Amino acid sequence: MSLFRPEIDRIAGYVPGEQPQDSGWTKLNTNENPYPPSPRVVEAVTAAAQGKLNLYPDPLGSKFRKAAATVLGVDPDWILPGNGSDEVLTILTRSFAGPSDQIAYPYPSYILYETLSDLQGARHERLLLEPDWSWNFDKLAPQIERSKLIFVPNPNSPSGNRWTWDDLLALTPPRGILVLDEAYGDFCDVPHRGELLNSSVGRQVVITRTFSKSYSLAGIRFGFAMAHPDVIAGLRKMKDSYNCDTLSLAAATAAIEDQDWMQQNTARIRATRERLTGALTSLGFHVVPSQTNFVWATHPTGRHKAYYDALKAQKILVRYMSFPGVDWAPDQRLDGLRITVGTDLEIDTLLDALAQIVK
Amino acid sequence: MSLFRPEIDRIAGYVPGEQPQDSGWTKLNTNENPYPPSPRVVEAVTAAAQGKLNLYPDPLGSKFRKAAATVLGVDPDWILPGNGSDEVLTILTRSFAGPSDQIAYPYPSYILYETLSDLQGARHERLLLEPDWSWNFDKLAPQIERSKLIFVPNPNSPSGNRWTWDDLLALTPPRGILVLDEAYGDFCDVPHRGELLNSSVGRQVVITRTFSKSYSLAGIRFGFAMAHPDVIAGLRKMKDSYNCDTLSLAAATAAIEDQDWMQQNTARIRATRERLTGALTSLGFHVVPSQTNFVWATHPTGRHKAYYDALKAQKILVRYMSFPGVDWAPDQRLDGLRITVGTDLEIDTLLDALAQIVK
Repeated sequence: MSLFRPEIDRIAGYVPGEQPQDSGWTKLNTNENPYPPSPRVVEAVTAAAQGKLNLYPDPLGSKFRKAAATVLGVDPDWILPGNGSDEVLTILTRSFAGPSDQIAYPYPSYILYETLSDLQGARHERLLLEPDWSWNFDKLAPQIERSKLIFVPNPNSPSGNRWTWDDLLALTPPRGILVLDEAYGDFCDVPHRGELLNSSVGRQVVITRTFSKSYSLAGIRFGFAMAHPDVIAGLRKMKDSYNCDTLSLAAATAAIEDQDWMQQNTARIRATRERLTGALTSLGFHVVPSQTNFVWATHPTGRHKAYYDALKAQKILVRYMSFPGVDWAPDQRLDGLRITVGTDLEIDTLLDALAQIVK
Repeated sequence: MSLFRPEIDRIAGYVPGEQPQDSGWTKLNTNENPYPPSPRVVEAVTAAAQGKLNLYPDPLGSKFRKAAATVLGVDPDWILPGNGSDEVLTILTRSFAGPSDQIAYPYPSYILYETLSDLQGARHERLLLEPDWSWNFDKLAPQIERSKLIFVPNPNSPSGNRWTWDDLLALTPPRGILVLDEAYGDFCDVPHRGELLNSSVGRQVVITRTFSKSYSLAGIRFGFAMAHPDVIAGLRKMKDSYNCDTLSLAAATAAIEDQDWMQQNTARIRATRERLTGALTSLGFHVVPSQTNFVWATHPTGRHKAYYDALKAQKILVRYMSFPGVDWAPDQRLDGLRITVGTDLEIDTLLDALAQIVK
């Protein structure tokens, strides 16, 4: 007899991308940044490690919030630090959605939102995107209307496209919260700046950011929410007292203070992204123009799983993704390869292998 | 109009002990270990900081689990690492208690359990302890019977006493889970070893441990659950994919591998605890014999809040605690001072000040 809640027994749980613990892999599957974090991060962590680790961290992460507020042009009370934006998304789910409430999210998109809904025991619905990754608002209006919480990654994954502010405004549920998951926002040609928080629906919008991607710090687990201080104050009740540790707070503070380092890396990734997109197109792939550090590539052969397997056999990991229930896709299933923009060398390795595989 | 769940709007949220960010305090209020962590921890964190922080951590924390399993004499599948035992307690609450389920915990005890229940929207009941901190099982049987989840800190806070295995067996709900929160287990004269997991109710027991106390690592946020692998597998669905970061995994692994360091520090704290207990008794306090790194002290004058304030005015922080709804206490309210066992020097500072204050 299981003593778990029935909702928990029913689900399989979220399965993250493969994280091989041995070496020798060209790892283009989980959208990590191929470049190291700022040297200031290493200095800050080394100093913090020699400090008072026997004491609890600052429960509010005040130094980080001050540094982030300066960069983002808001007051520190608009910022809630978290143990990765994963934790922030969990806090948001638990804060706004009870068992009878509806959570919605675009589809195909980041499948974690569905797992978060299941774990919370909330109801959930997919907002089916069009074949060109746009929204059919006429069709979706009733779903948006009845949602308490809508998660939208902007730019989206796996497609890498970015939506307009008008789209996002139209996605804000009339009696609910819109969460803009901006994990990849820094990779846009013109990065987001949280303007929607100052709009007429500003108090219904929460923006989440992560240090895992643009700041090259997936290893430290750090993200944050940005929202009106009244919203942040409510979210703070839900978080664990000391949800961020001394070392990650030191690392994130140093990282956000070194904007030059981050921007140099995102610029390099944008350049490589352009080259990768062109080369994949030459190999016959269709590639969605990306505003992120990955590209979504599909091939007329449809042999995406075979390509993934052939690459993996050569220790090149990309993400094979398959989305059932997409009525406009062949057999109602959209699949393809989501490929992280690595270093130029890693992308050469990938392209050389792919050229052999798809020919 | 608030968009938060009504349960969240209703509560104030948990308030942790004060964490002054300026220096000069004698900090005896949040049961931190006054001694630094093992030098191996500093080495491990420094090395990890120079490693690949741009990559995600091992989602399962395999190296840590292996090291912990060796120390604890179990298989690694019995271990679930978490972002502090706070996160483990949250995962347990969400995994086992739905809105109609009952959570119970001793009272007076660690008040966080009540907040965790409120945040989950579960029902909750206090298991009122007797004046000598023992259980009246005849009276409590119906409450235990109807609980889905019972949290018991063993040793208890604020009292510092430890219960017997027979007590804990009797606390296991017939159709539920008993969580033994062993945050202070390493400070016992004869530390716990998880024997209850091998008892007839073993699959209904989860033991939680933290690195914040005996391992002097409150700053890194690391704890773990120990339970039957079937239970651990279910809990794993609830955790964020990468709930523990690269640096804290490195720190915790190094710390648990240096048992000598931890045991030397806990031995020192036990010795200081004995001296503190004797000195407080000489000042007229009643002190519960403690198996932890703190003592619970009450004084016949009942002027606990005044003593706390007077100490704070001298930059000495202890924890003033007040528990309403205790029918055997004066005015149905139990209050007193919970004092962390610091270094001998810190305890001298406290005792000198208290001698002036209580005279």
